[in-house]
Amino acid sequence: MAEIVEMNREIVPHPIAVQRAPGITRIALSNPPANALSIAMMEALEQALADAGDDPDCRVVVLAANGKVFCAGHDLKELTAHRADADRGRAFFETTMRQCSALMQAIVRHRCPVIAEVNGLATAAGCQLVASCDLAIASEEAQFCTPGVNIGLFCSTPMVALSRNLTRKHAMEMLLTGERIDARTAREFGLVNRVVPPEYLGTVVGKYATTIASKSAMTVRTGKAAFYAQAEMGLTEAYDYAASVMVENMLARDAEEGIGAFLDKRKPEWTER
Amino acid sequence: MAEIVEMNREIVPHPIAVQRAPGITRIALSNPPANALSIAMMEALEQALADAGDDPDCRVVVLAANGKVFCAGHDLKELTAHRADADRGRAFFETTMRQCSALMQAIVRHRCPVIAEVNGLATAAGCQLVASCDLAIASEEAQFCTPGVNIGLFCSTPMVALSRNLTRKHAMEMLLTGERIDARTAREFGLVNRVVPPEYLGTVVGKYATTIASKSAMTVRTGKAAFYAQAEMGLTEAYDYAASVMVENMLARDAEEGIGAFLDKRKPEWTER
Amino acid sequence: MAEIVEMNREIVPHPIAVQRAPGITRIALSNPPANALSIAMMEALEQALADAGDDPDCRVVVLAANGKVFCAGHDLKELTAHRADADRGRAFFETTMRQCSALMQAIVRHRCPVIAEVNGLATAAGCQLVASCDLAIASEEAQFCTPGVNIGLFCSTPMVALSRNLTRKHAMEMLLTGERIDARTAREFGLVNRVVPPEYLGTVVGKYATTIASKSAMTVRTGKAAFYAQAEMGLTEAYDYAASVMVENMLARDAEEGIGAFLDKRKPEWTER
Repeated sequence: MAEIVEMNREIVPHPIAVQRAPGITRIALSNPPANALSIAMMEALEQALADAGDDPDCRVVVLAANGKVFCAGHDLKELTAHRADADRGRAFFETTMRQCSALMQAIVRHRCPVIAEVNGLATAAGCQLVASCDLAIASEEAQFCTPGVNIGLFCSTPMVALSRNLTRKHAMEMLLTGERIDARTAREFGLVNRVVPPEYLGTVVGKYATTIASKSAMTVRTGKAAFYAQAEMGLTEAYDYAASVMVENMLARDAEEGIGAFLDKRKPEWTER
Repeated sequence: MAEIVEMNREIVPHPIAVQRAPGITRIALSNPPANALSIAMMEALEQALADAGDDPDCRVVVLAANGKVFCAGHDLKELTAHRADADRGRAFFETTMRQCSALMQAIVRHRCPVIAEVNGLATAAGCQLVASCDLAIASEEAQFCTPGVNIGLFCSTPMVALSRNLTRKHAMEMLLTGERIDARTAREFGLVNRVVPPEYLGTVVGKYATTIASKSAMTVRTGKAAFYAQAEMGLTEAYDYAASVMVENMLARDAEEGIGAFLDKRKPEWTER
Repeated sequence: MAEIVEMNREIVPHPIAVQRAPGITRIALSNPPANALSIAMMEALEQALADAGDDPDCRVVVLAANGKVFCAGHDLKELTAHRADADRGRAFFETTMRQCSALMQAIVRHRCPVIAEVNGLATAAGCQLVASCDLAIASEEAQFCTPGVNIGLFCSTPMVALSRNLTRKHAMEMLLTGERIDARTAREFGLVNRVVPPEYLGTVVGKYATTIASKSAMTVRTGKAAFYAQAEMGLTEAYDYAASVMVENMLARDAEEGIGAFLDKRKPEWTER
């Protein structure tokens, strides 16, 4: 069994590249030109995200891509090949969609903020990757679309992420027309936070990542988890929940240190993981 | 009974105009100057929407208006006349509000995308019509408001659609002040997708409609329904649901054809309704 | 006991200033430079909001501030002093967070619209105050941030209000970086409705307040309550609820008067509270 896995690993070249800088893990999709979300790519991304989550030094994850395309979505050839299966592909499609949804939720549920560094075209589940990240910085050359409607396969899982970032008519325009929007429109729609010249993309993402990595890891982790949890609650429940999160946060060492340092006008020293 | 209905039909001139082009049904409110949502108007619109839903050739519905006003909302004279009823109008008001809410939900639940073509002023339930459509294109001369607050009747049903399209403070500004916003502001608020010179309104709407009508009807229908369904779910539930929608969509003929055509670099031929 | 309360009142100078104009109550945070949300400040604000709610002449509340800062959030010195308590402050922190959440919800649930008049910096729970108001007008010199992440205490309760006003990536950017945004960015993000030169701030807020105060109080109260109630419902439930609100509103005297006046082309006279 281990041998088979090993063999598979030999057949499929590792589709991502992981770099570690102090506090920052940079995961780059590295199977150009399409950087498609094949099973191998999704497994590699999930593993890299899990590793970053387990790495006590990791404070921020950057999700980037090598090549000219950020990510072109699912691997249509891989999906199509399974139409020859006895069940016409149902089991494989279920596996794929389940894994893709798990990957997107692994970003949302990751203990570290995940920043999308979008160098080029992000389509379908690739666009969903961007929408699923906590923050997104795009090159002026980036483009975005959810073109499933053009090939008979509506971008129904991407819409989950998209519709939680964009207002309704903007999301519907992307989903129903399948047409590309440029980076400035994506910023206007709320899909990305900032658009920069391509030569500054790495620098700007690095600035965001370094800024966030300098905070208390405990505080950021607490806040990120609370953000998505309260977003699904009614107002009263959300306030009850958030107030209890604040109380526990206040009692943690890093808050005592941070508030103390602020009042003493000195730099805080974070000690919590 | 049939005679009475017939008589009513003679008394009230048919308040809408329906045109059919290949794949596109254009329903125009045609009772200028106000195009008010009288019972007759709402019945006609609901019927026309139902007919379009039953028409296998219809892929996209355009909701437009004849005259200078898109729609001025409820028919206040009709409502006021029923204050003379034994119940001071309660039964009639209930009928009206129930019917209006059903009409708006018939747009959201329609199997085809509905595009608002907004030529002029859209107020109160008329503004709600625009907000309820999947997409909206407005003339530069269009204006929007929810002025019920000025006449002692808060736009409470319009707010349901408005608050699902606009961010909170934008919606509140419209609802509390009752003041008009111009088309550009409506675009900024997310109420409309695009603003065009009046002489190009039909052309641009036609381009959107034709684009969407050229897609697989099954795919568009699946995606539209899934969009509004998942919008009311938490993240995990939404992903479980959307993933299962994607699997069924993958197994449908049009997806096989669409993905195959894409991989073969040929034009797809949709065969599903 | 009454003497102790009296003594406390002498020790803590009253931290707010309340002014009444016809229909408008202006509550100004008046403990510069920080206008911090100490227990005394929160109690004073809650009391002033309750008084305005009980005042039959009050139609609109303006929430403003004296000094250069709108509100700098919680009183960190007061919080820190309680770390010396036997329970390391837990009980006091719980009291503070519960009171703060109650204050924010008192704004949302207030029978009158509450307009934030933001003259300067609004940080953390001060930014939450702005987000919690129904409308917000800001001076060009105003700035906004949720900087808790910088001091080890994530702005988890502010995020409840923030994330219900801003799209997700905008809210996350503020929460994760803790950096200030200027008034124009706040407008772009949907946190404030309008940005005006500082010398016009009072005039523009006054115009909004006067406009809304001229409406039927019953209508505005009905609409505001319905807005936040329906926002937490699914579409069908929201329409059922809003339709029943509309029917009761139609049967109220002010709606009869307002619609009658509109049809007769005369000015309405509101008689309901």
